[in-house]
Amino acid sequence: MADSNALPLTLLAEQFARLPGIGMKTAQRLAYFVMSMSDEEAQNFAEAIVHAHKSVHMCKICQNFTDKDICPICGSLKRDKSIICVVESPKDVAAFERTNEYNGVYHVLHGLISPIDKITPDKLKIKELLSRIDDSVSEVIMATNPTVEGEATAMYISRLLKPLGIKVTRLAFGLPVGGSLEFADEVTLFKALQNRNEI
Amino acid sequence: MADSNALPLTLLAEQFARLPGIGMKTAQRLAYFVMSMSDEEAQNFAEAIVHAHKSVHMCKICQNFTDKDICPICGSLKRDKSIICVVESPKDVAAFERTNEYNGVYHVLHGLISPIDKITPDKLKIKELLSRIDDSVSEVIMATNPTVEGEATAMYISRLLKPLGIKVTRLAFGLPVGGSLEFADEVTLFKALQNRNEI
Repeated sequence: MADSNALPLTLLAEQFARLPGIGMKTAQRLAYFVMSMSDEEAQNFAEAIVHAHKSVHMCKICQNFTDKDICPICGSLKRDKSIICVVESPKDVAAFERTNEYNGVYHVLHGLISPIDKITPDKLKIKELLSRIDDSVSEVIMATNPTVEGEATAMYISRLLKPLGIKVTRLAFGLPVGGSLEFADEVTLFKALQNRNEI
Repeated sequence: MADSNALPLTLLAEQFARLPGIGMKTAQRLAYFVMSMSDEEAQNFAEAIVHAHKSVHMCKICQNFTDKDICPICGSLKRDKSIICVVESPKDVAAFERTNEYNGVYHVLHGLISPIDKITPDKLKIKELLSRIDDSVSEVIMATNPTVEGEATAMYISRLLKPLGIKVTRLAFGLPVGGSLEFADEVTLFKALQNRNEI
């Protein structure tokens, strides 16, 4: 059987297939789509990749991605610098920003402690977090995911911070808003019961 | 709310979101993934796009994508040039090649007649097909999809070819192998009954 695809097209499909959640069939469809682009569009696409990769780096303070020295959140005069919300990844920052309710700053760990994946605490941005802690910080919110790794990381960091006299809090667990009791798992339901509030 | 994403990252996500089947959330995940690539990987990805777009064009004979003048299938001495299988798109060629059973050549239309989308016959590679027809061609197989547009295109082309004394055939319709009678739609079942074979 002769390979029906041109080699550069196969190579492009392989590049797409390396992206997370993109299988070989989708990758081929995307490669065909690139063929249907104009010269300019294809050029822009390629340049966007190189430009983003070159110009975007981590904010010196919170480690979120930015193309400046200090990200707009850390640089904003309107944000409350005394509250630091610690998250796993930049997309979690985006999620909190969408709520429009949080006015503190962030710290991005770029991962969670996971011995099985050989991710030890020194591979995360934990020392950068510790170096931010001074008298001006009143609270650190541990906003890692409610998974084994997220819990372990939250515990690890809180044990480092508490001796410094910092108030460390954890996101509340309970029923998701709009969710249904029927479909909640046992642990979530137990947490919702345990953390019940007076109304 | 300050935009939590760096501008080049947002621009890259927008580029990904233009690809078919990729929404804004997936696009952002892909953009973050590009950040985690090494410099070389990001460069290779960008180059694959430009290189594929630049070097790949249509085969002079069958109109399939190739980076040469004539694609490997049209150029092969082992393929039977007297049978032409007419398909909608290059991915259909790949599908037929995977069967390992077809030894003829192809003709890619790059679309189907669809007046509602303003795709008229002159926008397809139909005149290129007609120019290939000579005494050496014994059969043209219409292998467009069994949809309204696919049927219409197959009918249109067969009416052009039949006056030339060419044998025009259509792919068989019937039950998909491994399928179940229970889930077959009425039209498919009717076609399967109509086209029944003696065993």
